[in-house]
Amino acid sequence: MLEDLKEKVLEANLMLPKYHMVTFTWGNVSGIDRSQSLVVIKPSGVEYTKMKASDMVVVDLNGKVIEGDLNPSSDTATHLVLYRNFPDILGIVHTHSPWAVSFAQAGICIPAAGTTHGDYFYGDIPVTPKMTKDEIVTDYEKQTGDVIVRTFKDNSINPNDIPGVLVNDHGPFTWGTDPKNAVHNAVVLEEVAKITYHSLQLNPHNIRMDQVLLDKHFKRKHGKNAYYGQNNK
Amino acid sequence: MLEDLKEKVLEANLMLPKYHMVTFTWGNVSGIDRSQSLVVIKPSGVEYTKMKASDMVVVDLNGKVIEGDLNPSSDTATHLVLYRNFPDILGIVHTHSPWAVSFAQAGICIPAAGTTHGDYFYGDIPVTPKMTKDEIVTDYEKQTGDVIVRTFKDNSINPNDIPGVLVNDHGPFTWGTDPKNAVHNAVVLEEVAKITYHSLQLNPHNIRMDQVLLDKHFKRKHGKNAYYGQNNK
Amino acid sequence: MLEDLKEKVLEANLMLPKYHMVTFTWGNVSGIDRSQSLVVIKPSGVEYTKMKASDMVVVDLNGKVIEGDLNPSSDTATHLVLYRNFPDILGIVHTHSPWAVSFAQAGICIPAAGTTHGDYFYGDIPVTPKMTKDEIVTDYEKQTGDVIVRTFKDNSINPNDIPGVLVNDHGPFTWGTDPKNAVHNAVVLEEVAKITYHSLQLNPHNIRMDQVLLDKHFKRKHGKNAYYGQNNK
Amino acid sequence: MLEDLKEKVLEANLMLPKYHMVTFTWGNVSGIDRSQSLVVIKPSGVEYTKMKASDMVVVDLNGKVIEGDLNPSSDTATHLVLYRNFPDILGIVHTHSPWAVSFAQAGICIPAAGTTHGDYFYGDIPVTPKMTKDEIVTDYEKQTGDVIVRTFKDNSINPNDIPGVLVNDHGPFTWGTDPKNAVHNAVVLEEVAKITYHSLQLNPHNIRMDQVLLDKHFKRKHGKNAYYGQNNK
Repeated sequence: MLEDLKEKVLEANLMLPKYHMVTFTWGNVSGIDRSQSLVVIKPSGVEYTKMKASDMVVVDLNGKVIEGDLNPSSDTATHLVLYRNFPDILGIVHTHSPWAVSFAQAGICIPAAGTTHGDYFYGDIPVTPKMTKDEIVTDYEKQTGDVIVRTFKDNSINPNDIPGVLVNDHGPFTWGTDPKNAVHNAVVLEEVAKITYHSLQLNPHNIRMDQVLLDKHFKRKHGKNAYYGQNNK
Repeated sequence: MLEDLKEKVLEANLMLPKYHMVTFTWGNVSGIDRSQSLVVIKPSGVEYTKMKASDMVVVDLNGKVIEGDLNPSSDTATHLVLYRNFPDILGIVHTHSPWAVSFAQAGICIPAAGTTHGDYFYGDIPVTPKMTKDEIVTDYEKQTGDVIVRTFKDNSINPNDIPGVLVNDHGPFTWGTDPKNAVHNAVVLEEVAKITYHSLQLNPHNIRMDQVLLDKHFKRKHGKNAYYGQNNK
Repeated sequence: MLEDLKEKVLEANLMLPKYHMVTFTWGNVSGIDRSQSLVVIKPSGVEYTKMKASDMVVVDLNGKVIEGDLNPSSDTATHLVLYRNFPDILGIVHTHSPWAVSFAQAGICIPAAGTTHGDYFYGDIPVTPKMTKDEIVTDYEKQTGDVIVRTFKDNSINPNDIPGVLVNDHGPFTWGTDPKNAVHNAVVLEEVAKITYHSLQLNPHNIRMDQVLLDKHFKRKHGKNAYYGQNNK
Repeated sequence: MLEDLKEKVLEANLMLPKYHMVTFTWGNVSGIDRSQSLVVIKPSGVEYTKMKASDMVVVDLNGKVIEGDLNPSSDTATHLVLYRNFPDILGIVHTHSPWAVSFAQAGICIPAAGTTHGDYFYGDIPVTPKMTKDEIVTDYEKQTGDVIVRTFKDNSINPNDIPGVLVNDHGPFTWGTDPKNAVHNAVVLEEVAKITYHSLQLNPHNIRMDQVLLDKHFKRKHGKNAYYGQNNK
């Protein structure tokens, strides 16, 4: 079942080592079939070089394994919360990419400091509050999703405009219009974290770009007036 | 038409991934035929691995597409301003190379701190002032070129002596005596940004080299008394 | 003798250049056969590209060469102290990997700042005190092992929970359940050092993660209630 | 003439791109035949991928080209001063490797902060004073050599014990017992610069290792009591 989606999820997972986003097995990608409400996700702790499409695990939105011989990613419950609450997203990625994790461990957001950021993320990439003891002890992975969703709601952030987040003391989750696009956003987030880290060392004051420049760049690439690329031909 | 120049512009574009200057499609190179006043430029948002010489787009100096099935780079209007105002340059590159962007986001120039810099850039690599709301909202890409030209004029900088600039909160543009030489200068600018970033962390005081050392190194490689390489044989 | 272990020790040594952990010959891996109390270790100063399983040297726990034509690693005496004092470990690695050495030279531990760290190391990765003149002059390599063991005892650290250390002004040693696992831990230590270095530059205050989050992540992967990977199938 | 030495100098030059020590043509290696007082050096500004042994240039110790169709490296006069004043060295390297240049531009030495450094350099790697206007204007490349020699004499440094230097606002020169060994020392200097840069950011106080540890490590690898590697078999 869902052979096409399994192939896409496999390919998206294999982009992680290709773009130097993972050490060992530290990352996972999933995709969703919204019509059937089924999610395809990487198995837990399997090496990228050995993974096949048939290893991908199918789960429903409650986390029940529908098909697959292997355990799904230990982060599956987090993915499911995001799919349930962010209705437009069709792919999710979690990594421990080092520049993003540096910000997550420092507990600070990635400020929207330049056009590289603004081409993909329409504002700061938020960091979640630290999770409480109760959230960690019980249903940790589900609660990780809940704290992400709450961060977006409390700050009135549209997850379609800012397709990524840093979980405090942990690392980034990104999402997108399909599994490959979610990986694309993960790579951009990592690159932006690297660049903005160095900008902050050079000049910690007033690092954010003007709103009008952010509007220009984000809308040049997104929405009905976009004119970047070949889509408006 | 312009098959030779298309081939050269393609080759120069392919140097960008080879020298690790681009993530995804974030960069573009153009070249100009001064005798016909026609510019050849990379199409917008096309992957480097799939690009062919025949994909290159020919535009005139007003931005009218003369030949090509694809949209030209969204930065085309910036290139055209530079070609119109800097009469000696024959190739232009724009990238989001990370060290250069770190300085651009910080809003500071790259100071001429050592001979690696002085061998190619005869003084600080300037950063433009932030663009105003009006400049961003109307004809943004053209105005980006205008702010570059104004930065050179207002500071009496000869673009042949300092073949590059940082657009504030955005990234670098470089140029040169042909498309490949413009990429060469882009790679040097990125390397110099990396080195000088670390020098500034080690010792932020008096980072600039003496003018006499800058004169020596720039003129060892440029102008009628140059003696570097095999050109004076 | 010990052909299987020699092959494993060779393979683990070859992981060091593969994971960019060594420059030239700066690193060594050993493994132990506990039933025979014999250690197999890399020869001293031999290039990785030329090493064969038959070059591996067999020594007893007192350092006597039992088999092999080459000198064993100059760090052999350190390995032996660790095998004698940490009874559960079956493989040891020493490298000069640059991020770990940066912390060692600075004389500071790597704080447990996030889940990447907590998945493998159950607390700060300690740095030893500086060695005294007497320790350096006499039996230096053995004394290096002694100062590691004393660091763990004095701070009541279980070497099975924190499988690595920074020797002050020198570099990291890691260990594990076999030679390959010891290299795995060396790679994680280096990655964690890189990430946490940058977090400390972004935010030097309160960098440590909460104990409850550390408990959660370490125990998700280790011990009888672990549920990461495919082991609990 | 000197075919063997030309081959060795070519091979040593090709190690520079292999070890990521050069961008474009920014580096040169030479070797000397002491019996004939002839030096073989890389030609100026030639790409590494196209260089052949027959392109190497033979010069005498006064800089007169004895054999070769190409201009010798523009840094030849610096090499010759070093060969004339440091009688034991048989190979010299100059690069613009980025971490070493970061220190050179900052005008600070690389302190002997740990054993990685102490295994190869018996003390701080010095930085020269800034060159005066007179030194830069007249015989610049020869004067560069003179300022290096003076730095070693004025500070009573033995060039056999510390086989490298940072020329202020410029970059590193290293030397060794043959051209390949000189490149080896260049790679170590770059690695040590990278590591110690980060140590200085983590802890700028008392970064130097104790003298007794420096003695131990340097003498473990050098001199009549060395016991590292296979040389004492």
